[in-house]
Amino acid sequence: MVDESVLSALREFVSERDWDQFHTPASLARSIVIESAELLECFQWSDQAAQDDVRDELADVLTYCLLLANKLGLDPDEIVLAKLESTKQKYPVDKAHGRSSKYDRLPD
Amino acid sequence: MVDESVLSALREFVSERDWDQFHTPASLARSIVIESAELLECFQWSDQAAQDDVRDELADVLTYCLLLANKLGLDPDEIVLAKLESTKQKYPVDKAHGRSSKYDRLPD
Amino acid sequence: MVDESVLSALREFVSERDWDQFHTPASLARSIVIESAELLECFQWSDQAAQDDVRDELADVLTYCLLLANKLGLDPDEIVLAKLESTKQKYPVDKAHGRSSKYDRLPD
Amino acid sequence: MVDESVLSALREFVSERDWDQFHTPASLARSIVIESAELLECFQWSDQAAQDDVRDELADVLTYCLLLANKLGLDPDEIVLAKLESTKQKYPVDKAHGRSSKYDRLPD
Repeated sequence: MVDESVLSALREFVSERDWDQFHTPASLARSIVIESAELLECFQWSDQAAQDDVRDELADVLTYCLLLANKLGLDPDEIVLAKLESTKQKYPVDKAHGRSSKYDRLPD
Repeated sequence: MVDESVLSALREFVSERDWDQFHTPASLARSIVIESAELLECFQWSDQAAQDDVRDELADVLTYCLLLANKLGLDPDEIVLAKLESTKQKYPVDKAHGRSSKYDRLPD
Repeated sequence: MVDESVLSALREFVSERDWDQFHTPASLARSIVIESAELLECFQWSDQAAQDDVRDELADVLTYCLLLANKLGLDPDEIVLAKLESTKQKYPVDKAHGRSSKYDRLPD
Repeated sequence: MVDESVLSALREFVSERDWDQFHTPASLARSIVIESAELLECFQWSDQAAQDDVRDELADVLTYCLLLANKLGLDPDEIVLAKLESTKQKYPVDKAHGRSSKYDRLPD
């Protein structure tokens, strides 16, 4: 379940500004990319970043993710848990333990 | 608050595979970008996309966002609500209503 | 000037497959992002990457950049040189020397 | 071949500012993503974009691509042409004509 107060705060914010007209799944997907690149920019030249900057940019990515989930009638927690199940199959513990390799490059 | 069962399921998944060693804020930020681009790929040639594909890719973006928030000791809901407050200042209703322009291009 | 043989090879490839109908500036911009994230994926968990993988993904990013420049009637070399001139203004040598800071965070 | 004057202009610009120390393949890959997302931002809410903005952002993406190619001792035109050859195999004209589907979803 998504926290009710977060979702209604977001919906009210969007509705007050009559912005829903701009929020298509495609434009929300573009927005998620754009914000995630601003998050990456915190680490452009270094692996250390100011926590405040990272927090602000991560908040923007999450915001658009929640808006997209809401637009598609999806529950963020549910889809994360569902995806986790299939990822467990792709990366069985005995093969994937301690390795960062992609699933098609795991040892037999 | 983040749903407790989602967070502990993710933590257990990562821990079982001894993957936390790979999860630095920088690598998690890269992962969020990579997954968001896979989400965008659903809309590469068209504004219509298969809902299943979008759901799966959105789940991946959210997963890495939750892992990054957890790594930094942040509560996703809290940071979204906090960011919303400052975004309200940048985009006052009277100026931003019905406009998709960036805050530095709003009318006076 | 862009090397004539590269541009005509790309044009022929696209034309043979009747793909120009899909190549709008917007879809080419999305494609550039998607391919650049695949390039980033070479470095997802490490700063070291297989040179072959990097070369292949960089080739894809460049390909879409050349297609977008061509679609807009722009010469890639010209626009890079033109942008370099304004970047020199933003980052004067005396202020920017040895610093990775963004232009709005340079010392006075 | 890459236009000699573009490459030496870029090298001189970087060298004057002592910026080569920041340019690793990993950081250049991140930079390419960051700039491509700024290009995408021109199309965030609409498929129409100001040509000047698109030109500026495309120039930034190309700049970092040239810097990365240079860093790895690669010729941009060569790698694009080489990649084109393998892409022709993946997307044979008879199967791919007029279709935007990915190679693993082409008809038999």
